[in-house]
Amino acid sequence: MDTLPAGLAATETTPISNRLARFATDVTPGDVPADVMAQAKLHMLDCLGIALAASGFEFAKRAATAIGGLGGPGAHPVIGFPMRLPLRDAVLLNGTLIHGLDYDDTHSDAVVHASASAVPTALHMAREHGASGREALLAYLLGVEASARIGAAAQGGFHQVGFHPTGMVGAFGCALTAGRLAGASAAQIAGAQGIVLSMAAGSLEFLQDGSWTKRLHPGWAGVSAITATALARAGYKAPPAAYEGRFGLFRSHLQEKAPADLSRCAEALGELWEMRNVALKPYPCCHFNHAFADAALALRAAHDLRPEQIARITCRIHEGQVKTVCEPEASKKTPANSYDAQFSVHYTVACALVHGRFTLDEIEEEAIRDPRVLALTQRTGYELDPTSRFPRYYGGEVVIETTDGRRLSHREECNRGSDANPLSAADVERKFRDNAGRVLSPQRAERVLELVMGIDAAADVVALTDALSG
Amino acid sequence: MDTLPAGLAATETTPISNRLARFATDVTPGDVPADVMAQAKLHMLDCLGIALAASGFEFAKRAATAIGGLGGPGAHPVIGFPMRLPLRDAVLLNGTLIHGLDYDDTHSDAVVHASASAVPTALHMAREHGASGREALLAYLLGVEASARIGAAAQGGFHQVGFHPTGMVGAFGCALTAGRLAGASAAQIAGAQGIVLSMAAGSLEFLQDGSWTKRLHPGWAGVSAITATALARAGYKAPPAAYEGRFGLFRSHLQEKAPADLSRCAEALGELWEMRNVALKPYPCCHFNHAFADAALALRAAHDLRPEQIARITCRIHEGQVKTVCEPEASKKTPANSYDAQFSVHYTVACALVHGRFTLDEIEEEAIRDPRVLALTQRTGYELDPTSRFPRYYGGEVVIETTDGRRLSHREECNRGSDANPLSAADVERKFRDNAGRVLSPQRAERVLELVMGIDAAADVVALTDALSG
Repeated sequence: MDTLPAGLAATETTPISNRLARFATDVTPGDVPADVMAQAKLHMLDCLGIALAASGFEFAKRAATAIGGLGGPGAHPVIGFPMRLPLRDAVLLNGTLIHGLDYDDTHSDAVVHASASAVPTALHMAREHGASGREALLAYLLGVEASARIGAAAQGGFHQVGFHPTGMVGAFGCALTAGRLAGASAAQIAGAQGIVLSMAAGSLEFLQDGSWTKRLHPGWAGVSAITATALARAGYKAPPAAYEGRFGLFRSHLQEKAPADLSRCAEALGELWEMRNVALKPYPCCHFNHAFADAALALRAAHDLRPEQIARITCRIHEGQVKTVCEPEASKKTPANSYDAQFSVHYTVACALVHGRFTLDEIEEEAIRDPRVLALTQRTGYELDPTSRFPRYYGGEVVIETTDGRRLSHREECNRGSDANPLSAADVERKFRDNAGRVLSPQRAERVLELVMGIDAAADVVALTDALSG
Repeated sequence: MDTLPAGLAATETTPISNRLARFATDVTPGDVPADVMAQAKLHMLDCLGIALAASGFEFAKRAATAIGGLGGPGAHPVIGFPMRLPLRDAVLLNGTLIHGLDYDDTHSDAVVHASASAVPTALHMAREHGASGREALLAYLLGVEASARIGAAAQGGFHQVGFHPTGMVGAFGCALTAGRLAGASAAQIAGAQGIVLSMAAGSLEFLQDGSWTKRLHPGWAGVSAITATALARAGYKAPPAAYEGRFGLFRSHLQEKAPADLSRCAEALGELWEMRNVALKPYPCCHFNHAFADAALALRAAHDLRPEQIARITCRIHEGQVKTVCEPEASKKTPANSYDAQFSVHYTVACALVHGRFTLDEIEEEAIRDPRVLALTQRTGYELDPTSRFPRYYGGEVVIETTDGRRLSHREECNRGSDANPLSAADVERKFRDNAGRVLSPQRAERVLELVMGIDAAADVVALTDALSG
């Protein structure tokens, strides 16, 4: 414990938690560039559409049964379900819905799904404290700004050790969101980050069998942050060096496994907006696979490829992505469940080539047993691509050898949905309508869309959160 | 991630979580030896007395304000406070009270305060589900048996990395406690352990400044376990290899830092009772310091020592304890707060020599500024003792050089309160009366004592939990 991972010896003397907290209390909506606020609204819309779609899935029903039975009824509506729950239970369930389909946004450098924890924390803390829609939007943005920076500081290290940064880091980001909306002082928001260090968690063990624990991580991060915020506001004593301390987040959770650049944690707050670097997903699978889906679809269209013409597929990918979407290769070639499928570059590419698409239908339990797709995953492999720009962008190249001896390839340098290749507002609205339309009438879906797009002019978030109710 | 810490390649093919779960569903009160049940009652009594004493301290009042304000009123009484809270909030607050003075019991091999999480989880889950007193006692015992084994498997490694196993491991132990009382199946209790892997947390960063986060860890472990249990009972899919998996508890949280002996996790369940190896504290400070307090008191009494006769004090201690109670030596010699004081072997020994005692009065903020004590801590140091039986026992030797040139020493091989040197039932009852008497009338304290001693014959735990209310 006496040598720090590279970069951990932060030179700034003000603790990171204080710098983040000061930003959280001092920033005003007027400080935020209009494009960033507009982007935040689109991301919130995207989250809510995904959560609505998710509410029809089995994991969601089971989560709702469990969480709904724990603390009895409360004042907070749940997305896609008729019940109302106490604050923290609503945040836990809604966070689970947003993240549960792995269709929500990701900050690339951090590999953190920052919105999944910050959106429900912002909406329900705003509802709890009677905050305006604009304050809710700003508080959500604060969570993203903090989680993105803290995650990026780890430089991919959490994944290497076995932690899911979406849960781990989201708890800290949500401390800013919750603190702002609770009217906490900067000292209290700093304290909440020290307290949430004792609660932050998130295991990658779900990768082994596609179990559903990952889906809980963002909501649990919100619950942890809300609890820590209440304690900090009551003057409960917290350690100041939550990030850079002897047993702070980076030392205890990264150890010597990976480098860390702590200067990123509170870098250029209010100047550089990480919201601009949060990628929206065009496909309901791991972000790492999106460039491969687009590359496969491009090859299919350009060469009018049919599966039986394909002898061999090679996915050229960065080493840092291999553990997540390429290995263990047996389960990537024959996914046992929807999670395996979403985290298999083999399956994504095969679906794209067989079906010409990758949608929520492709992650249903029946779809993953489709013999035409599985025949193709068996002929799919990967090789390392040291020229990839990972983790800044999740690029990918698909190389296809055809049965008649041709070698076809397509490379996507930057994944679609990223800042270099963004989805348009119209794309996001289309995705929202598709998702929301799985459970809401078109009229109700439009109503939600209007309420989100008008959130910065709303006196509160009551109408919006009510409109999401099932 | 491809090489396991020594011993991590478990040979048993049944996952540990299943073996623990099977024990939790199959054991009956009749399977438990009478001395183990009697010991469990004494430990429960000890916890409740400490929690009552704790309720008068500032950290407790702040925690009560925070937690009480989060979820509104509920059906569960809180120890030493008049309010009633929802299930999980009562567990969080009561766990905080039990552990908050660092006066609660410890399993030596595991260095885990197992009762602090298992007692409130057992009492409030029993109240929630209408279970009998005997079932509550058995479920509490299950939590201790599991936490002790899982902690012992880490062989002190969690501390080395910066995690507090009381919180980390307690969450798994409480999954057995909560599952048993909820009437969960073995498969569900195994699942709850997989789910709680995504929630288990606990940082040692509090050691840096004596902040209060450590005190939250056992209660939060209970909250996590109760939440995980509800999800598992609803069929929420959980990873099976919570402990031994590729990203299971030991790999993600220990990495290469420390050995682990996973065979201990589910060893000799129902045959070897770890409850017998949980040490009760005679002094309100870190267990590591108790042998030193007794040695100092013995020297003081035997030689009628006065502080001004002491030139130099050397504490001979095992290397594995140094980081916790000897270093950084500047803050151990001049503790800035009650936590520093409780975790300083220097301060403990100096108090014992100056005051002839170490009680709750010695950890008050004023006491730690006593110049007579601080004069002595400055003359105190330590040296490594490779012959210590740590971690099986927390022994200690105090060597005093007097101003007139004598060299006096006293060695305690096994800390008092441990199985080799146990507190008697009368000792525990005396400690309970002292602690409870700080906030309850003698009559009310006796009433609690009777209810705990009669818990195995009680139809429910309503009277007991009500009697603890403030």
